[in-house]
Amino acid sequence: MKAARLYDYDPDMNVSLRIENVQTPTIKAPDEVIVKVGAAGLCRTDLHIIEGVWREIMDPDGALLPYTMGHENAGWIEDVGSAVKSVKPGDAVICHPLRTCGICLPCRYGEDMYCEHGLFPGLGLDGGFAEYFVTNERSVIKLGDGIRPLDVAPMADAGITAYRAAKRASKLLHPGTTAVILGVGGLGHIALQSLKALSGCRVIAIDREPAARALAKDLGADIVLDGGPTVIEEVHDHTGGGAQVVIDFVGELGVENITWRMARKGGQTFVVGYGGTVQVPTLDLVVNEINIGGSLVGNYTELVELMELNADGKVKMHYEQYGLDEINTALSDFKNRKFVGRGVIVP
Amino acid sequence: MKAARLYDYDPDMNVSLRIENVQTPTIKAPDEVIVKVGAAGLCRTDLHIIEGVWREIMDPDGALLPYTMGHENAGWIEDVGSAVKSVKPGDAVICHPLRTCGICLPCRYGEDMYCEHGLFPGLGLDGGFAEYFVTNERSVIKLGDGIRPLDVAPMADAGITAYRAAKRASKLLHPGTTAVILGVGGLGHIALQSLKALSGCRVIAIDREPAARALAKDLGADIVLDGGPTVIEEVHDHTGGGAQVVIDFVGELGVENITWRMARKGGQTFVVGYGGTVQVPTLDLVVNEINIGGSLVGNYTELVELMELNADGKVKMHYEQYGLDEINTALSDFKNRKFVGRGVIVP
Amino acid sequence: MKAARLYDYDPDMNVSLRIENVQTPTIKAPDEVIVKVGAAGLCRTDLHIIEGVWREIMDPDGALLPYTMGHENAGWIEDVGSAVKSVKPGDAVICHPLRTCGICLPCRYGEDMYCEHGLFPGLGLDGGFAEYFVTNERSVIKLGDGIRPLDVAPMADAGITAYRAAKRASKLLHPGTTAVILGVGGLGHIALQSLKALSGCRVIAIDREPAARALAKDLGADIVLDGGPTVIEEVHDHTGGGAQVVIDFVGELGVENITWRMARKGGQTFVVGYGGTVQVPTLDLVVNEINIGGSLVGNYTELVELMELNADGKVKMHYEQYGLDEINTALSDFKNRKFVGRGVIVP
Amino acid sequence: MKAARLYDYDPDMNVSLRIENVQTPTIKAPDEVIVKVGAAGLCRTDLHIIEGVWREIMDPDGALLPYTMGHENAGWIEDVGSAVKSVKPGDAVICHPLRTCGICLPCRYGEDMYCEHGLFPGLGLDGGFAEYFVTNERSVIKLGDGIRPLDVAPMADAGITAYRAAKRASKLLHPGTTAVILGVGGLGHIALQSLKALSGCRVIAIDREPAARALAKDLGADIVLDGGPTVIEEVHDHTGGGAQVVIDFVGELGVENITWRMARKGGQTFVVGYGGTVQVPTLDLVVNEINIGGSLVGNYTELVELMELNADGKVKMHYEQYGLDEINTALSDFKNRKFVGRGVIVP
Repeated sequence: MKAARLYDYDPDMNVSLRIENVQTPTIKAPDEVIVKVGAAGLCRTDLHIIEGVWREIMDPDGALLPYTMGHENAGWIEDVGSAVKSVKPGDAVICHPLRTCGICLPCRYGEDMYCEHGLFPGLGLDGGFAEYFVTNERSVIKLGDGIRPLDVAPMADAGITAYRAAKRASKLLHPGTTAVILGVGGLGHIALQSLKALSGCRVIAIDREPAARALAKDLGADIVLDGGPTVIEEVHDHTGGGAQVVIDFVGELGVENITWRMARKGGQTFVVGYGGTVQVPTLDLVVNEINIGGSLVGNYTELVELMELNADGKVKMHYEQYGLDEINTALSDFKNRKFVGRGVIVP
Repeated sequence: MKAARLYDYDPDMNVSLRIENVQTPTIKAPDEVIVKVGAAGLCRTDLHIIEGVWREIMDPDGALLPYTMGHENAGWIEDVGSAVKSVKPGDAVICHPLRTCGICLPCRYGEDMYCEHGLFPGLGLDGGFAEYFVTNERSVIKLGDGIRPLDVAPMADAGITAYRAAKRASKLLHPGTTAVILGVGGLGHIALQSLKALSGCRVIAIDREPAARALAKDLGADIVLDGGPTVIEEVHDHTGGGAQVVIDFVGELGVENITWRMARKGGQTFVVGYGGTVQVPTLDLVVNEINIGGSLVGNYTELVELMELNADGKVKMHYEQYGLDEINTALSDFKNRKFVGRGVIVP
Repeated sequence: MKAARLYDYDPDMNVSLRIENVQTPTIKAPDEVIVKVGAAGLCRTDLHIIEGVWREIMDPDGALLPYTMGHENAGWIEDVGSAVKSVKPGDAVICHPLRTCGICLPCRYGEDMYCEHGLFPGLGLDGGFAEYFVTNERSVIKLGDGIRPLDVAPMADAGITAYRAAKRASKLLHPGTTAVILGVGGLGHIALQSLKALSGCRVIAIDREPAARALAKDLGADIVLDGGPTVIEEVHDHTGGGAQVVIDFVGELGVENITWRMARKGGQTFVVGYGGTVQVPTLDLVVNEINIGGSLVGNYTELVELMELNADGKVKMHYEQYGLDEINTALSDFKNRKFVGRGVIVP
Repeated sequence: MKAARLYDYDPDMNVSLRIENVQTPTIKAPDEVIVKVGAAGLCRTDLHIIEGVWREIMDPDGALLPYTMGHENAGWIEDVGSAVKSVKPGDAVICHPLRTCGICLPCRYGEDMYCEHGLFPGLGLDGGFAEYFVTNERSVIKLGDGIRPLDVAPMADAGITAYRAAKRASKLLHPGTTAVILGVGGLGHIALQSLKALSGCRVIAIDREPAARALAKDLGADIVLDGGPTVIEEVHDHTGGGAQVVIDFVGELGVENITWRMARKGGQTFVVGYGGTVQVPTLDLVVNEINIGGSLVGNYTELVELMELNADGKVKMHYEQYGLDEINTALSDFKNRKFVGRGVIVP
C-alpha cells in the first residue's frame, strides 16, 4: 500500500515526507482492527514531529525512522481480531487517537489520555497517512448513517481537544457570562461551535487573520477582535470586568500571558496551545481567584459526544482536502496558514 | 388606583375578580420599592388560589380577602425606600416573586425560595393585578435597554420555574442524550428554549394540543409527540432505551406515573406540575437507578440568567395580552386553554 | 472441588444448598481469570434467589439449576488467560461482582453496572460458594499488603452498594447538615463509616435491633434511634427541619414512605433496599423540592476507593465467619438476623 | 475605649502600634451592629499592612492613618441598628471580615468576597484591635452554646481562607488520592483538619519548623516532610506519581514553583500565600493537565460550615493569647514564628 513516511527530523522543516509502497498491515492481536483510511487530518503536532520537538519522547532510541505519520483518522473497518465484537468489516468509523488498555485505573476512571499502556498510532508507531493502519477495538466509534470519514477525520484529535476544553468551560459558564477564544484555527473553530451548543454564554473570538475572524463571525461569535495591543482592555470593556473563561489555542508568543489578564474574578483560563511560559504573580492569582489550567486531547466519550453534535448539525469541521501525494504541499500550506479550518489528507 | 381583587374562593371558579379603586401603596420600610406595573402574567396558581387550594397556606386566619392577586410582575420603579441604592424611579424592572430577607441561611446559600422570612406579593398580600404594587430592593432586576416589561413579565415566575428545571436538567445531559418535556404551555415552551440554549441534548416535546405541538416544533423540538397511549414505547424507541431526563409540567392526571417509565438507567425526572401522586416500586427505582425530583420556582440569579438569555434572543415568552378590565376573560381563556404560551394582564 | 449448589427455588426457603464435588473450572477465554476463593459474603439477594424472586430474570429458560451461588468474592488468582497482564497467579484479589466488556458506551462512561454485556457470577452462572470460580481481568482488584480476602470479601457487593450511596450522599452534605441511615446491617454499617470518612456531616442511624444500634454508636453515629412510631418527628427535631439526605437500606415494610418525610427542603433520599412502593404526592415533591433516587451496586472504581478506605483503617467490615459446610446454617442465621454486620463463607 | 492604632507604614517594621483611648463607636445605619470584641486574631496581612504593602489599595489618598487594625474578630453584640432582627445585644458572635451589601450580583451568587460594595473593618476602616468595633448584620454568625469568642476568633479570616481551599480541594479528592499542604501555620493547620473532615484522602504536610511538623502529626497528617531539596521527589515517591491536590500557604520564596511540580496528571494546586511569581511552561500545563488556582478568603456560608465543624470538635484553632497591651510583642513573636497556630489579641 502507499504511505507517507518521515525519514529525517529537521528543525527548519526543509524535509519532505516520502510517498512509498510498504507492506499492508495485518491483525496481530485479538483486539486489533485494520482500518482502511478514508481521511486523515493534518495537525500542528505533525509539524512539531518533523521539527524534532517530540523526538526524545516518541523516539528515545533513535530507531523509529522511517515511519508513517497521521493520527487524526477515519475510514472503514477492513479486518478485525478474534475478540472484536462491536465492529465488522465495512463499518465506517472514526478512531480515537490512543489505543488504550481498558484495565489500568485511569482507563477505569474514563481518563483515556492518562492510560498507563496507551499506544498512539502516528506518534511512535505507524499512523494514518497511508491506505491502511492498525488500531484496536476500544479506539473506534461507528459513524452514523450518512456521515463520511472525510467530513469528520480531524474530529479524532483536533476536534476532541477543542471539545474537551469547551466542555470543561461550559460547566463554568452561565447565561450572561463570556468565554474568550484565542485563535480560531482548526481547534478554535470547533471550540466556538461547541461552546455555542453546550452553554448559553457569549463568545469573543480573537484572531489576527481576517479569514479566521470571518469564519468566527459565521459560526456565531458574538464579538470578533483582531488581537491588537489593546485587546485586554477591549475584553474587559465588552465583559464589564473580564471574561469568565479564556481558552488559549496559541500558548506561546506572549499570548499565554495575555490570557489570564483577560479573566474576571473567579475566572478560568484553559491552555491548549503550547510553547511559551506562563508567568503570573501569586498575588494576582489569589486576589482575583484565577485558575490557569492545561487541557489535553479529549477522551473516547468526548469523541462520541462530538460525533453526536456533528450528527445533529451543531458542530462541523471546516477543511481543505489534499491527496496523499500532495501531503508535502498540505504541510507547507498549513505552516503558512493558507487555509482556514483543518487540512485533510485523502489516500 | 385600579386593582383586580378576589372576594371569594370557589372550587368551581364561578367567581369573578372585581376591578375597583383602592389606595395607591406607599413606602413603609427603608428597603421597599413601589413598582408601577407594566404587565403581570397569569399563572395556573392563580386559578388554584381562586379555587381555594392555597386557602389554608396563605389565608390561615380567613382574614385575607379581599386582596389583589398577581405574582408575575414587571414594570417601572415609582418610588424607593431610604436604603435603596441599586435602582431609582423610572428604571424598568422585572420582579422576582419573593421578597427575601438576605439574612437567613437559605438566602446566604442563594436558595431564595427557602427564605425563612419571605413574602410573596400576590399570594397572601397584594400583588400586581393593579396599577402599582410594593416589593423590596432584593427582588428587582433592571431590564436591559430596549426590553419592555410587557415582553417579559411572566418570566418572573413561569419563566424561572421552567428555567430552573431546564438548568438542573442541562447538568445531566450531554450531546447524544435526550430530554422529554411533558406539557408545552407557559412553562414548557420556556423550558424547551432554555434546554436548547444550555445543552447540546435532543428534546422530545409532548402535548395533546396541536397548537402547543406546533409551537414546540417552531421552537426547535427534535421530535414532537401527541401523548397517546403508546407514548412510553415511543420515547423508548426514539431514545434507544429511555430519556436521560423527563420534565413533567403536568404532575397529575396519570402523567406523573408515565414520566419515570420514560427514563433510562440512571435517568432523572423533574416534577414541576402538581396534583397527582407518584407511585413507584422501590425495585424499579433501584434496578434502573432512577431519580424523581420536585422542582420549584427559580432563584433570583436564575431570573437574572433567564433575562440574559432573553436579551440575547435565545428565550422568548409567547403570550396573549389582556387589559386589566378583561382579567376575568383572561382567566376563562386560560382555563379553557384558548391561547398558547402565557396570558398577560396590562393595567 | 467442593461447591454449594442450589437445586430448587422455594418461596418459603425450606431448601438447603447441597455441598458436592464438581469439576474445577478452567480458563476458556484470553481475558479470564480463575480465582481460588478465600471468602464469599452472604447477601440478602441470595435469600431472594432461593425464594425464586430472581427466577425470571436470571433463569428465564428454567435450565440454570443446579448452579453455584455466591457473588461477594475475594481470594487469590489461580490461573489467567493469555491476554491478562495486570495480575498473576498468587495475587490476592477482591472481585467486582460484574464481568464487564469494557467496550460498550456505559463501560466507557465508567458505569460498569449498566454494561450491555455484563455477566454476574453467582447470579445466572456459577459463583464463589466454592473452592474456585471464574471471572475476568476487568473485575479484579489487587489487595494491598497485609489485607486478607476474609476481611474484605463482602466489600465486593454489600460494601460498594453502601459506598456508592454514601459517596453520592457526601456530595450533597456539608458540615452542619445531617444524613439519616435507615437500617444498620451489612450495608448500613459500611455506609455509616463511609459517610464519616467522606464528609463532615452528622449521622442519625436508625435500626430496630439493639445490637445494630450499638454497632452504629461504636462506629460514630451522632444520634441513634430505634425507629418507633414518632421517628419522623424525632428526625425533624434533631435536624431543625429535616435531614439533607436519607439513605434507606430497607425499602419495604412502610419504611420507603417514611424516608422522604424525613427530608428537609431540597433534600434527597437514596433507596437501596427494595420490595415496597414509594407513594408521594407531586405537591410534596414540588413544594419541598425533594429528590427520591434509587442507588445500585457500585462501580469498579468505587470498589477501588472503598479498598483504599479499608487500607487506611477508615472503613471495616464487621462479619461472622462460617465454613462452606455450614452455609445452610449461615443462611438461616442471616434470615433470623442472628449476627450484626455480614455473614462470610470460607471454603 | 482602648484601641491599638497604626500611625506609620514602615517596610522594616520598626514601628509599634499605639495603645490609646478613642471614642467608642455608635450605630449609624439601620443594618449596623456594634460588637464588643472578645478576641481578635493576628494575621500575616497585618504585618503586610504595617510594611505598607496594602497602602495603595486601602489608603490611596494617604488620609487613613491613624486607624485601628484587626480583621479576625469575635465577641458579643453590644448594640444593633433599627433593621437588625437576627441578633440582639448579648449574643456571642463571630464576624465574617467583609461587610457585604447583599444586593449586588456577586452577593446574590454567594460570592461575598467579590461584593461590589464590601467594607473590610481592619483594612481601610477601624477594626477589632480595640474594645468595640462596627460591622453589619450580614457579617455576624451566632456562636453555638458554650463556644467562646476567644477559641474561634481567627476562624473569621485565617480559618475560612484555609477552609475554602480545603473544601475546594475535597471536591477533587477521593479515597486513595493525596493532598499536600505546604506550610502548617495558622492557616495550614486548619486546612489539614478540614481536609480530614471533608474527604477520605491522605495528607502530606510539609513545614521547615519542627514544632509545625509535630502539630501536623498530632492533627492526623499521614506523612510529614521537612521540605528539603528533594521534596518534589519525596512527594512523587509517596504518591506513586504526584499529588492530586497541592495547597500552597507560602506562595513565595520559590515554593510557588515547587507546588505544581508535585501534582500528578490532572492535578490541581491552590495558591493561598502570595509574594512570588509562578513560572510554568505551557507544555507542562498541557501534557499533565495541571490546574493552578488562587484561593481567597472564604464566604459567609463557609464560615458557618467551619463553625459547625468546630462545634462538632472536628476542627480546632491552636493559638497563643496576648493582651491588647502586648500587641507589639505579639506582632514580633508572629514575625519570628515563636508560636505554632495563631496569635490572638484579647482586649
